[in-house]
Amino acid sequence: MKVMILMGSDSDLAVMEGATQVLEEYGISYKMTVASAHRTPELVALMVAEAERKGACCIICGAGMAAHLAGVVASHTTLPVIGVPLDASPLGGLDSLLATVQMPPGIPVATVALGKSGAKNAAHLAAQIIATSDKTLSRKLKAARKRMAREVERKARAAEKHTK
Amino acid sequence: MKVMILMGSDSDLAVMEGATQVLEEYGISYKMTVASAHRTPELVALMVAEAERKGACCIICGAGMAAHLAGVVASHTTLPVIGVPLDASPLGGLDSLLATVQMPPGIPVATVALGKSGAKNAAHLAAQIIATSDKTLSRKLKAARKRMAREVERKARAAEKHTK
Amino acid sequence: MKVMILMGSDSDLAVMEGATQVLEEYGISYKMTVASAHRTPELVALMVAEAERKGACCIICGAGMAAHLAGVVASHTTLPVIGVPLDASPLGGLDSLLATVQMPPGIPVATVALGKSGAKNAAHLAAQIIATSDKTLSRKLKAARKRMAREVERKARAAEKHTK
Amino acid sequence: MKVMILMGSDSDLAVMEGATQVLEEYGISYKMTVASAHRTPELVALMVAEAERKGACCIICGAGMAAHLAGVVASHTTLPVIGVPLDASPLGGLDSLLATVQMPPGIPVATVALGKSGAKNAAHLAAQIIATSDKTLSRKLKAARKRMAREVERKARAAEKHTK
Amino acid sequence: MKVMILMGSDSDLAVMEGATQVLEEYGISYKMTVASAHRTPELVALMVAEAERKGACCIICGAGMAAHLAGVVASHTTLPVIGVPLDASPLGGLDSLLATVQMPPGIPVATVALGKSGAKNAAHLAAQIIATSDKTLSRKLKAARKRMAREVERKARAAEKHTK
Amino acid sequence: MKVMILMGSDSDLAVMEGATQVLEEYGISYKMTVASAHRTPELVALMVAEAERKGACCIICGAGMAAHLAGVVASHTTLPVIGVPLDASPLGGLDSLLATVQMPPGIPVATVALGKSGAKNAAHLAAQIIATSDKTLSRKLKAARKRMAREVERKARAAEKHTK
Amino acid sequence: MKVMILMGSDSDLAVMEGATQVLEEYGISYKMTVASAHRTPELVALMVAEAERKGACCIICGAGMAAHLAGVVASHTTLPVIGVPLDASPLGGLDSLLATVQMPPGIPVATVALGKSGAKNAAHLAAQIIATSDKTLSRKLKAARKRMAREVERKARAAEKHTK
Amino acid sequence: MKVMILMGSDSDLAVMEGATQVLEEYGISYKMTVASAHRTPELVALMVAEAERKGACCIICGAGMAAHLAGVVASHTTLPVIGVPLDASPLGGLDSLLATVQMPPGIPVATVALGKSGAKNAAHLAAQIIATSDKTLSRKLKAARKRMAREVERKARAAEKHTK
Repeated sequence: MKVMILMGSDSDLAVMEGATQVLEEYGISYKMTVASAHRTPELVALMVAEAERKGACCIICGAGMAAHLAGVVASHTTLPVIGVPLDASPLGGLDSLLATVQMPPGIPVATVALGKSGAKNAAHLAAQIIATSDKTLSRKLKAARKRMAREVERKARAAEKHTK
Repeated sequence: MKVMILMGSDSDLAVMEGATQVLEEYGISYKMTVASAHRTPELVALMVAEAERKGACCIICGAGMAAHLAGVVASHTTLPVIGVPLDASPLGGLDSLLATVQMPPGIPVATVALGKSGAKNAAHLAAQIIATSDKTLSRKLKAARKRMAREVERKARAAEKHTK
Repeated sequence: MKVMILMGSDSDLAVMEGATQVLEEYGISYKMTVASAHRTPELVALMVAEAERKGACCIICGAGMAAHLAGVVASHTTLPVIGVPLDASPLGGLDSLLATVQMPPGIPVATVALGKSGAKNAAHLAAQIIATSDKTLSRKLKAARKRMAREVERKARAAEKHTK
Repeated sequence: MKVMILMGSDSDLAVMEGATQVLEEYGISYKMTVASAHRTPELVALMVAEAERKGACCIICGAGMAAHLAGVVASHTTLPVIGVPLDASPLGGLDSLLATVQMPPGIPVATVALGKSGAKNAAHLAAQIIATSDKTLSRKLKAARKRMAREVERKARAAEKHTK
Repeated sequence: MKVMILMGSDSDLAVMEGATQVLEEYGISYKMTVASAHRTPELVALMVAEAERKGACCIICGAGMAAHLAGVVASHTTLPVIGVPLDASPLGGLDSLLATVQMPPGIPVATVALGKSGAKNAAHLAAQIIATSDKTLSRKLKAARKRMAREVERKARAAEKHTK
Repeated sequence: MKVMILMGSDSDLAVMEGATQVLEEYGISYKMTVASAHRTPELVALMVAEAERKGACCIICGAGMAAHLAGVVASHTTLPVIGVPLDASPLGGLDSLLATVQMPPGIPVATVALGKSGAKNAAHLAAQIIATSDKTLSRKLKAARKRMAREVERKARAAEKHTK
Repeated sequence: MKVMILMGSDSDLAVMEGATQVLEEYGISYKMTVASAHRTPELVALMVAEAERKGACCIICGAGMAAHLAGVVASHTTLPVIGVPLDASPLGGLDSLLATVQMPPGIPVATVALGKSGAKNAAHLAAQIIATSDKTLSRKLKAARKRMAREVERKARAAEKHTK
Repeated sequence: MKVMILMGSDSDLAVMEGATQVLEEYGISYKMTVASAHRTPELVALMVAEAERKGACCIICGAGMAAHLAGVVASHTTLPVIGVPLDASPLGGLDSLLATVQMPPGIPVATVALGKSGAKNAAHLAAQIIATSDKTLSRKLKAARKRMAREVERKARAAEKHTK
């Protein structure tokens, strides 16, 4: 397992699959499970220990509201922790964004965008971290970036038809 | 000890003394110490265990930024946990307020106002909780409330001199 | 009656039933009714007096917009007052959250999360307050916390099937 | 007395004198005093009764944080109530603004700007309300508006020297 | 005509009818029309002049986004101007609320709540202003307030059936 | 081509057509295409170069979330750049608005309103810029402004039927 | 005069001189004066007429709080109007930003950053607009952009000394 | 060089030295320089190329206002990019936070807290990323984490003297 993915509630599964799709495209092995910082603090600690033991390179945490999961995970490990703030309250995710990103000195959480965009980017960031010592993956990332650009260029040509 | 007071950093001491002043006025014993949810998760768990063992009725937690302390304490106990969000970042405390109050179902944090007003109110709330089974303290609370009203009335008479 | 539940409008009933479900699970007696801080200030005072007379341990108040209900109730009693900010305007509940939590020194409102999550947590917090002097309830709370953890663990095992 | 001015704390005096200066310019009699919605609910009710008895045309209320004063006053009277949200917390007055303006249907608070600008405008608005049935005052208001314009024009001429 | 009601766009009609319903209940005559501060500044000035000429006691203005209508109207008159911020953009009405309430010293806008609640309260406030010199209307307002309280009490009795 | 219109994603097409409709009404030639500041930085530079080469008078950029497109375009040209912040995240467009408007000294982005209103106004602003050296277009703009006023006046007459 | 600069109050002079410095660097003639949308609506209209008569290419408007000045100016002209939101209230300029940028379709305001950065950029944007039909100025803008880059490069070399 | 540190302006130097202090404690080599996304887009591209050529493992970017620097850097590389939002405007850093974190799918920026706390954490995160393939550094990180805990414990003992 190269990446451990934790989420605070199984209602976050559909959003967090944005991360697993990207990891699978890159051929990166992962374990995804539920672990609540508040309801199961011991389970969180166990999952962090498992991630470290099995050689994970980083831990992705998705949580909403007072999103403490990434911070609690970060307090148990020196692996890079990636936080995905989820939009799970009437406040539009401002609560989870601030609760994830505003970590005190010494215990960083690498925070990405709110919701599904963030879940995907958590996986892209995990891949970038692994690629710092994996030349093959690094090449894959560069190739994917080029495909992404070509995809935009294709859409650009389609959109240009509107020109008058 | 009836109340355990934790704060995330010793830079919060001056603000959290708003709580100890009120507890002392009510003659409520307390222990105040520093315990960081992120830098010392084990110390936090130890302090919660000590609070439970020594018969504390509630735990007051003051923290700023991504204020996880109250939530992490609440995950370790079923004692009432009172959260004081502190204004410790350029965002005016909106980060700590949302990170403290927006707890998921099952693990409440009784959140009070930002900063020193909140630190004082955390102690007033702790006293109210203890007073639910302590008639003497309950009478003290009612007396204090009356003194508070008389104090406002005194200020009202002073302010009325501005009338024209 | 151990808990009085007030809400500012009967349109809040569905949300505030999040509180009654939890109280019923714990076997805590309650009275739930409507009392508007602005339209029926006398009724609010009467309800507070009834709560005190009948031995309630705390008062839960749910209100939206400029949510004054919890603060007005708190001005009439030294019982712990729990405020549930409701999401009842285009501002996503930021108005009711700030109007509930930012109480001045001396008159605390124990504020919980916005909406149904908060209604449930208001009841959990009420139970925690009552349990400070009720060993049987305290044991129930600890048992419920364990069930909650086991439920998350069950979901964790289901989610792990997504691992690759 | 034509206008009753209440403020939640005597620390608001300097700001609320923005209102008394304007009232004095218009020759409108007023009473200014302190009355806390939370610490002295009875005093607030007494002051409202005094305002009605003495023929006040409106009540100005200045308060910060969870600013309930104007709303509580409005719940006791059908006189126009003018709310001045004060900037008294780290949130820049967003708390008092929302707690003052977002009143439920049936109980309006005429809310003006934050802080001293708002205190002045509360008095201007009070004067406008009184002027709806006072031709002399109405003429004074129009004259004052013209002086205001001439004052801006004077400043305009000074500023034009910067032209190049 | 006692009240002029202006709105920035005819798409605001359904919301602003919250005001006309209340005015009709009180038997207050009004004129409601559309006048855009930005697209028809002359029409706005004409409408203000008509309001003054026909003896209106106040002008209600509903507008969304950068809601300048109330402020522009206030710049043309010394009649009380009531601003209803409308929720007409993705920002939940925060834009129109701030653009309406934060008026500079000398030119107040009496701002009420966002949307339909605010439209209703604009009419209640208009009635309160008119009632400062109309005893009959003043009695109607007090009677309406009592009916409102009885309505809440009726709902309270219905809600109490949920008590256990 | 007088105006180049870029958008960060083809999912923004429907909103950005608000701009093309207005340009077509004024008879202003344009090219609209997709170019992502983050996925295709070279394509963005190419499009800017094409705009300059073909004599465009300004460049309109629509983007959501961390909306960098307008800023990146502005870094490549001294043509006026108009930014349309799009509402493409749970934060209601506050992210794209701030990311578009808060440019550092020397590199302005002329920012307009969020979403479709902004897309239309981007085109109106582009027309105003072109009209600074095109008398015919300037006359068209004035005529359009008058039609707009007449349209509001027509709606005003319809709305006045609600008067009582 | 090529640019008219208006500000709502002479207290904004120091900030708005950020604009005049830039215009003078580019050798662009301007008139700067004070004109309040709310206190002197006629003066605003006169200034707009003067700007049009004297051949100004655009109008820069700086205002704080409920910043209506740019919108009101835009309602009187089809010249490009540039709005500089000023930070003049406890809300950090969020009020003036939203009141300036969120204009309805048909009446755009080209909004730049808050405060002095925005005042400077208003002038840069004005220069860019004028340069669309002034080749000499266009060359000056490109030269200034290069100087700006060289200045950053110089600072970069100084900062690199911190490298280890 | 293992880490490239870029900042948008040399006025950010004092804050970004929070990052260099931490890197020096860990013995990680770095290059720190200024490169503005808007004023020197070519310099930014050059610095990214230099970082890649010299084997940097990640790039730290500090910027304020419409903070595009991290996003622009991320568009040029597949190395992990760490964004430090700086508090450089009246909006308390909300602008730079949202402009840094809300990146679109495919181009992540690992965002840390606002200001100096964030600058320090950017370096801690960089160290964690490098440590994923550097056992010696990994041990240093764990040792540092323990020292951090002991430091908090020392402060806890000092704070406990306040206990009564």
